[in-house]
Amino acid sequence: MRRMDVAVLGATGMIGQRFIQLLEGHPFFDVAGLYASERSEGKKVAQVLKIRDHEFNRETLETGIRQIDVHEIARNCRVAFSGLPADIAGGIEQDLAEAGVAVFSNASSHRMRDDVPLLIPEVNPGHLELVRSQETFPGGGFIVTNANCSTTGIAPPLKALDDAFGLEIVCVSTYQAVSGAGYPGVPSLDILGNILPFIGGEEEKMEREILKMLGTLENGEVRLADFDFLANCARVPVLDGHLESMILTFEAAPELHEIESALSGFRAEPQELELPTAPVRPIIVRQEENRPQPVLDAYAGEPERARGMAVTVGRLRKKDRYLKLFALSHNTLRGGAGGSVLNAELAAARGFLR
Amino acid sequence: MRRMDVAVLGATGMIGQRFIQLLEGHPFFDVAGLYASERSEGKKVAQVLKIRDHEFNRETLETGIRQIDVHEIARNCRVAFSGLPADIAGGIEQDLAEAGVAVFSNASSHRMRDDVPLLIPEVNPGHLELVRSQETFPGGGFIVTNANCSTTGIAPPLKALDDAFGLEIVCVSTYQAVSGAGYPGVPSLDILGNILPFIGGEEEKMEREILKMLGTLENGEVRLADFDFLANCARVPVLDGHLESMILTFEAAPELHEIESALSGFRAEPQELELPTAPVRPIIVRQEENRPQPVLDAYAGEPERARGMAVTVGRLRKKDRYLKLFALSHNTLRGGAGGSVLNAELAAARGFLR
Amino acid sequence: MRRMDVAVLGATGMIGQRFIQLLEGHPFFDVAGLYASERSEGKKVAQVLKIRDHEFNRETLETGIRQIDVHEIARNCRVAFSGLPADIAGGIEQDLAEAGVAVFSNASSHRMRDDVPLLIPEVNPGHLELVRSQETFPGGGFIVTNANCSTTGIAPPLKALDDAFGLEIVCVSTYQAVSGAGYPGVPSLDILGNILPFIGGEEEKMEREILKMLGTLENGEVRLADFDFLANCARVPVLDGHLESMILTFEAAPELHEIESALSGFRAEPQELELPTAPVRPIIVRQEENRPQPVLDAYAGEPERARGMAVTVGRLRKKDRYLKLFALSHNTLRGGAGGSVLNAELAAARGFLR
Amino acid sequence: MRRMDVAVLGATGMIGQRFIQLLEGHPFFDVAGLYASERSEGKKVAQVLKIRDHEFNRETLETGIRQIDVHEIARNCRVAFSGLPADIAGGIEQDLAEAGVAVFSNASSHRMRDDVPLLIPEVNPGHLELVRSQETFPGGGFIVTNANCSTTGIAPPLKALDDAFGLEIVCVSTYQAVSGAGYPGVPSLDILGNILPFIGGEEEKMEREILKMLGTLENGEVRLADFDFLANCARVPVLDGHLESMILTFEAAPELHEIESALSGFRAEPQELELPTAPVRPIIVRQEENRPQPVLDAYAGEPERARGMAVTVGRLRKKDRYLKLFALSHNTLRGGAGGSVLNAELAAARGFLR
Repeated sequence: MRRMDVAVLGATGMIGQRFIQLLEGHPFFDVAGLYASERSEGKKVAQVLKIRDHEFNRETLETGIRQIDVHEIARNCRVAFSGLPADIAGGIEQDLAEAGVAVFSNASSHRMRDDVPLLIPEVNPGHLELVRSQETFPGGGFIVTNANCSTTGIAPPLKALDDAFGLEIVCVSTYQAVSGAGYPGVPSLDILGNILPFIGGEEEKMEREILKMLGTLENGEVRLADFDFLANCARVPVLDGHLESMILTFEAAPELHEIESALSGFRAEPQELELPTAPVRPIIVRQEENRPQPVLDAYAGEPERARGMAVTVGRLRKKDRYLKLFALSHNTLRGGAGGSVLNAELAAARGFLR
Repeated sequence: MRRMDVAVLGATGMIGQRFIQLLEGHPFFDVAGLYASERSEGKKVAQVLKIRDHEFNRETLETGIRQIDVHEIARNCRVAFSGLPADIAGGIEQDLAEAGVAVFSNASSHRMRDDVPLLIPEVNPGHLELVRSQETFPGGGFIVTNANCSTTGIAPPLKALDDAFGLEIVCVSTYQAVSGAGYPGVPSLDILGNILPFIGGEEEKMEREILKMLGTLENGEVRLADFDFLANCARVPVLDGHLESMILTFEAAPELHEIESALSGFRAEPQELELPTAPVRPIIVRQEENRPQPVLDAYAGEPERARGMAVTVGRLRKKDRYLKLFALSHNTLRGGAGGSVLNAELAAARGFLR
Repeated sequence: MRRMDVAVLGATGMIGQRFIQLLEGHPFFDVAGLYASERSEGKKVAQVLKIRDHEFNRETLETGIRQIDVHEIARNCRVAFSGLPADIAGGIEQDLAEAGVAVFSNASSHRMRDDVPLLIPEVNPGHLELVRSQETFPGGGFIVTNANCSTTGIAPPLKALDDAFGLEIVCVSTYQAVSGAGYPGVPSLDILGNILPFIGGEEEKMEREILKMLGTLENGEVRLADFDFLANCARVPVLDGHLESMILTFEAAPELHEIESALSGFRAEPQELELPTAPVRPIIVRQEENRPQPVLDAYAGEPERARGMAVTVGRLRKKDRYLKLFALSHNTLRGGAGGSVLNAELAAARGFLR
Repeated sequence: MRRMDVAVLGATGMIGQRFIQLLEGHPFFDVAGLYASERSEGKKVAQVLKIRDHEFNRETLETGIRQIDVHEIARNCRVAFSGLPADIAGGIEQDLAEAGVAVFSNASSHRMRDDVPLLIPEVNPGHLELVRSQETFPGGGFIVTNANCSTTGIAPPLKALDDAFGLEIVCVSTYQAVSGAGYPGVPSLDILGNILPFIGGEEEKMEREILKMLGTLENGEVRLADFDFLANCARVPVLDGHLESMILTFEAAPELHEIESALSGFRAEPQELELPTAPVRPIIVRQEENRPQPVLDAYAGEPERARGMAVTVGRLRKKDRYLKLFALSHNTLRGGAGGSVLNAELAAARGFLR
């Protein structure tokens, strides 16, 4: 794999900083520029630090942040990772694609476009082919998006179970960490000792996105998955890690051990390709009676590069056609920047970044 | 209504202290004795205070706590309110019933007995008749239980909706406050910035209890309700107030406004009898996009006596045969001591305490 | 006392809403208008609610908020209570004074002016006379300020002890609640499970203000108190109630019982005048080994009107010339709006509002 | 250095598990046995895990825990690390010393004995010589203790400053993490959204211990340091990391830059000997306006082995003879097990463990 230069957009935000973290020493990608809004121009990473659990390299800390300039980025970078806020992401990402840059975005702006893959490499790697229908593709530019953080965490187990047994109804209730709202995000007066049973637009995103991602690609179009999906979303006083309560109705009634095997044995293309950010085991099944927990399981995955990239499930209990379980994933790693980096790795491995 | 003397058992615990609070100035009941285990004998209420949101009367604070003595209680009290821990509640409550005392218990020991009503006056007042089949009834003694705190909060809305439209599947995911585990209860090291997706025995209790309470009394026996009920329980870093995410499947597909009317218009026997601890509106439907919240809605209900006795529901969203909503109730008032006091008021009003 | 009309400025903020709360049913003052920035114009109180522990009257909830208009306020109101943010408070408050309005402000803008009293009625009621030297006084307009929230909580005990025994060095370390930073204020990502050992400008304010308030009025000028005062300020994950650790060095070495008497027996002009918002006991001395605590003591004071207006001290330990103790006060009641209302009551009682 | 076998006592507790963590792959010590009370006998480490931020080796997780047996330990181990609770530590540690074992204890039982060093290698390495006066020393057994967690964090900066400029008065107010109380420790009902201004015995320990540790060894006896030391201790809702507010009065009035140099340049015997658990920089001086913070600075120190062993100070502000600052240290690493391990390394390097 030849190394290539990449840009990080939204470098001062929670997701942007996770990109910077994951790209330190990355085997495919070299960071050629960190970009954010005008307001942050000239500041160094050290001055806008937001991540508590990662010790950045000295060189990273000294890197300056520039104002976004599409032409400059297109001149210097083959790839752009976008952690831009939704209100400005749409236009800039499109401009970059038109300028020939491959954009891997965490923003929601383009997620539901027919010609844009909403990609989780373990779930729907084939959807990457959709980029061929983007107008900008012949010039080398295209957009790939990753899903909402609360959707990403449950997509791999749902994929494994739908493939194996067929899902009929999926009921999800979320316990979402405050880092999912970015910084400054949730005011402490709202969440200390409290639960907020509302996250604007989240449930709608989850319901749309999961059916697209678990859908099948037929004649260049995604045919939506056909189970019923219902989500109730809530914010909880936790820093990192989205916990999700899942109650599933199957078409058939598999045995519990079959379900466990389908989950823990789940492997997909990123594992076969040994993509650098792919966890060896995408779904970890815990047997303890009180797992997964945010503080214990958010960083599941191999410590070197796939830290925080595995989904942990636990408390599997079956009754007739129903399965109850809890799932947990790191919302700004697996459900944010890590998802985009893995998407780019898949694109590189499949030859889309030449 | 003639006033009568009552005992509080488990007076040093979270539930016991809620009993004491609710019985201060009660129009039917006078506290004739506070009882707890040997360890607390001789202490005053002021020395074992656990409740933060209520200012006790000076007289209450000076009251001494005695060791439980069945004979003494039977001699002095017509009624005993029990907030005893499950491991000792069963025997003591039975002894009291045999000694002629009417026991209103918050413990789980006798809840599933065929001849013991699991009573929420707004939901299944008729089940009170079950006590007539208890062996001790001719002597004036009997046991009435109230449901688990997480079950109690969702029973009234489920009752209203099942009666009106017929329920097929009920999926509940809980966000339960730490006061539900008593004191010392949940260690801070386990719950600060964390969610515990496990509460021992809770889901089993919920699943059994809801079907009994929403069941019908036929020939002196409870016939269980016949919808499917599935619960995932979790503990959250909140002091008071259980929030519950509910995703319901109806037999038919009512309109949203019909659902709202069925909930907000719900009234039952306690409201008709104007029992002192009964909220005027048992179910409050909030229209705001971000309610109910524990810190804002746990104490819903009329401030004088029914504070914390109303259930608040919000975020009602309908899709086909599904309804999504959140419910909130105060776990040690409506879901604990308040439930037992209301049960006793119903029993008094119906003449069971003569 | 003839009733008079008053305005609340900054009605959508944490302090402004405490003003509204305290003025509901006030025996001296009628709210004639709620004012805030242009952005909130036309909204009702019910739409901008921020206070969790007070149930507002229905009438209050329906009151509309207007854009600040100095002439309108001057036409209608004898008094204005200001909870404006510091960046705009200075000019508006001065304009109101010039238009003949008596302004009682919680903002820091005018606090250190030589002709503006920095007033705590229990501490330095005589400083109210300073308003006579304000240029606007002949026209009926003047400005009175109250101190910073962390200063207010310790001023009464320091006054009581300095008067009785003479203070030499005062070392204070604060544990300040997030409500002190207003709304949205402190981001949850910064404070969940964390302590922030920095509050911008707070230590400087405390050091300046305490010496002015405990100073003496000589020939129309405040002579600063002459003990050394040192403060370290920190923000903690608590909603309401500033706890402060105090380590004092006395000039002499009083006995502990003398110290306790000086604190618990402390009474001042507001108590003699029986001002409606004045606590009967301004300083409550707790004997328990683990008090004061924010959740238990923030609302100390008589429940009717002086709720949250008393300062609680505890853990008094003496060694040689040193005294160690903890003090607690409600930062937006005693340390915010309640302080201003009490100032206005003093001004009314002394005839400054005729 | 010849490797030697060691035992860990109290292996199921918070401190015991930190010992296990620090001894994984230790260059001097091999864990030959994990010991705890009868209740835990036969359990594996994996079943009693309490530490969230360290991933234990698979071999460690599988290690079984045995009941404490002084003879067995003495037969197999040259050294015992004790994280035993205070109520049983005293006797067992003395028995081990008599059986010839070198005991490095985190318990308070023997700390104030005249012949027991209360040791922080950076502060008073010479005090190690005290063990020569222990009766058991000729047989190879002796006891070395480390200080209370809140004392340890401030001892190095106080040592540096006292040596350089002479301290007169030290006022400390603590913000102590819940892990300092062990497990289950602080009930969540007491600390969620609250501060507890009391930790039993803590202030007394701090006041005694700091004067002993900063005292001088003269003729085999410790002469206590002679500045005045005053501590107010409080528990805060933070998991790990004790923050401490310090207000110091110097004998002279050094310049701020001299103070900074004295702190950041501080080095001692562990640094000269390059002991494996010693941080290269024992005191880190932060220049940011809002540091140190528990979540950002608790794990300061070199990541390999001295993680959590450095003390971080910040917000240094000088006025006349006063210095205000904040200090932070990890209470179960630097202030607990890490301190004992470093003590043992010093003893090994100085030849006390032959």
